[in-house]
Amino acid sequence: MKHHPARLIAKKRDGGELAADEIADLVSGVVDGTLGDAQLGAFLMAVCCNGMTAAETAALTLGMRDSGVVLRHDRISKPKIDKHSTGGVGDKVSLLLAPLVAAAGVAVPMVSGRGLGHTGGTIDKLAALPGYRTDLSITEFGDVLEQCGYAMLSPSAELAPADRRMYATRDISGTVESIPLITSSILSKKLAEGIDGLVMDVKCGRAAFMQREDDARALMETICATGRSAGVKIAALLTDMDHPLGLALGNALEVVEILEALDGNCPEDLREVTLELGAEMLVLGGVAVDPRAARATLERLWQDGVVRQVFRHNLELQGGDVRVLDDHTLLGRAPVIEAVSAPRAGFVEDVDPLALGQVVVDLGGGRRQPSDAIDPHVGIVLQKQLGDPVAAGEPLAIVHAATTAAWEAARVRLVAAMPVGEERRKRRPVVLDRA
Amino acid sequence: MKHHPARLIAKKRDGGELAADEIADLVSGVVDGTLGDAQLGAFLMAVCCNGMTAAETAALTLGMRDSGVVLRHDRISKPKIDKHSTGGVGDKVSLLLAPLVAAAGVAVPMVSGRGLGHTGGTIDKLAALPGYRTDLSITEFGDVLEQCGYAMLSPSAELAPADRRMYATRDISGTVESIPLITSSILSKKLAEGIDGLVMDVKCGRAAFMQREDDARALMETICATGRSAGVKIAALLTDMDHPLGLALGNALEVVEILEALDGNCPEDLREVTLELGAEMLVLGGVAVDPRAARATLERLWQDGVVRQVFRHNLELQGGDVRVLDDHTLLGRAPVIEAVSAPRAGFVEDVDPLALGQVVVDLGGGRRQPSDAIDPHVGIVLQKQLGDPVAAGEPLAIVHAATTAAWEAARVRLVAAMPVGEERRKRRPVVLDRA
Repeated sequence: MKHHPARLIAKKRDGGELAADEIADLVSGVVDGTLGDAQLGAFLMAVCCNGMTAAETAALTLGMRDSGVVLRHDRISKPKIDKHSTGGVGDKVSLLLAPLVAAAGVAVPMVSGRGLGHTGGTIDKLAALPGYRTDLSITEFGDVLEQCGYAMLSPSAELAPADRRMYATRDISGTVESIPLITSSILSKKLAEGIDGLVMDVKCGRAAFMQREDDARALMETICATGRSAGVKIAALLTDMDHPLGLALGNALEVVEILEALDGNCPEDLREVTLELGAEMLVLGGVAVDPRAARATLERLWQDGVVRQVFRHNLELQGGDVRVLDDHTLLGRAPVIEAVSAPRAGFVEDVDPLALGQVVVDLGGGRRQPSDAIDPHVGIVLQKQLGDPVAAGEPLAIVHAATTAAWEAARVRLVAAMPVGEERRKRRPVVLDRA
Repeated sequence: MKHHPARLIAKKRDGGELAADEIADLVSGVVDGTLGDAQLGAFLMAVCCNGMTAAETAALTLGMRDSGVVLRHDRISKPKIDKHSTGGVGDKVSLLLAPLVAAAGVAVPMVSGRGLGHTGGTIDKLAALPGYRTDLSITEFGDVLEQCGYAMLSPSAELAPADRRMYATRDISGTVESIPLITSSILSKKLAEGIDGLVMDVKCGRAAFMQREDDARALMETICATGRSAGVKIAALLTDMDHPLGLALGNALEVVEILEALDGNCPEDLREVTLELGAEMLVLGGVAVDPRAARATLERLWQDGVVRQVFRHNLELQGGDVRVLDDHTLLGRAPVIEAVSAPRAGFVEDVDPLALGQVVVDLGGGRRQPSDAIDPHVGIVLQKQLGDPVAAGEPLAIVHAATTAAWEAARVRLVAAMPVGEERRKRRPVVLDRA
């Protein structure tokens, strides 16, 4: 580092604004280790407490982006647009959205993450597809993108390496909840993908990273402002995460839900979010004049089976077994698959996504620690959603478990997470707002 | 740790008040390493940004005190009172104050620090005394205290070990400037000495840790409140550090100033601060009814040579060469000793303690880094103080240097640090306030 670390940290501590070159210097210290752990922890906390100006957040984002390889896809003339979600329970949108948008002529270079806690990760879901590889080299990633219009990559040590250390440090040091730090973490990785535009899915609700709507809105606005000042086109949806998305929770079960969706059988909320995000991507990419036209195009491509073809092509290119499209049993199954019944008649008064996400983790379908192994087959398939009428003894959900004991433990918690009562509640719209 | 570190850190980040057991848990993590560097850095910064309540500061202080050995001096029936200064340039008070107060029947178990930057350290000054040992065992420390009424110990790994790691971490992570952290660092070490009372010398001015008077007052008040809630008697003086204290700056030169003071030849400011601090210590110890009576007692003991005898006894017990009392040349001398003359006639318009302290460091008499070696012989002896009239060519100060080049470099800076002009400025009182 050129500057004295303690001086820069103290400047942020005292509410000062760091210059772009000072922030770049801190990021260089993150990467080469000249900024020690205690210094990084103190800096991150100073940002949590005192925030960052728009200029600081942009400088941090660009510094982190430039800490590693920044991809370019010069051979591909199509617009390159990606989507990022702040994460939720049942959020398998990327698996459907990427082939959908690629079918419409937008290239989607998508680097996704693994799940942690109750929030699933796209890479874990893809890992449930027999043979599918997400550990592509940078060259392979570009080749797949060129050939089928989208490519899926697991987090690469070459892209935005500063974020890797900062993220791990934030996780243990109570410095996760900071809009400038969340923004720079998300955008630095996305900008390193070599995209022209990004659509953000900022989730809001009990199982979202941002539970309160005003926090989610603030994050959405900061991401949009920072992305624009970094030179990418950006749009954002604020979407509901007070209810799981779709019906399937658990990696292989969610892939089956996607395979069925490709065949035209898609839960309404999943369909809505996917089409709305896709429409924004087409507009950003300049291949549709407005969201309405974009949506019509996407619906047609989906219905005509073009999206399924693109998905099949990508599956082939990334090593997956294409037979799964016709035979979902190739994904395997958990030993114990049994319905959980409603204890009484009435209406489903809640479907608590946080509780259900934690049940899936405890079934073995998610990680408590980053090093945990995942059982792809376990999970929950909802048979009822919020407000649905249900008879006593009728299935609320089907639980897929590794053992009967695990099934029983899940059953008890599932019944508590999906209370049945007199009140018929209505789910709020899945797309709450857009920016 | 019993609690999850990130949860406790986030609580402080969000402005919450940590419970005593939560703070004790954090301190245990500091000592056993289960609180990692990044977590410690983040916690310290959260305290810098959000402060601590009185109860939190007291809990932190007690937790840090109890992180190691807490001394007891049960064999000694005298009151046990110590003094702590926040540090300054020319502050050799402890060397004179300890025998002074001990002569009046107050036991002084004094653990002192080393110097860093422009601020000197008592342990470095004592190291200029041939043979004098401050690396006593805990048992030796108690024995010396019992036999001569005071004992001097360098920082021990056994006392308040939590502070050692926290202090080192604060130093590199921009988290030094926090009143609760400064308070707990000072008091935890002092309370571990096994004292009944403490007199604080909070310095204020350009060369002080607290430059602004309101910051110094805030620190003084927090230390007093925290010390009292931790069960020790406490008093504090706010003293001037806009001017060096006494005339000698540099370790052996300051010891000579003390030896001369024991013989009755003491600069007025040094005499004033020492007697005022000593008077407070006697009152806290219950051996004088009020500061005025205490001061009269101390002046008599000093004048009668009793203080010199106590100093001699301690010197003997801690391995020092007692002949230095009569032969100051035994302390050795720097190769180059030459006066720096006033460039013009007039009045000394400033004696910049920060600049002079840095000159001493650069002469080799202080440390830039904690690992630096010190040359005990180099330094400055002022011949003029603020407001003194001076003729052109008359000595402003005598510089003791290792080489002529070092002397010349010091001369240039000394002339700048002691400008001579038309204006006759008056020094503010050395004792600014008391609490």
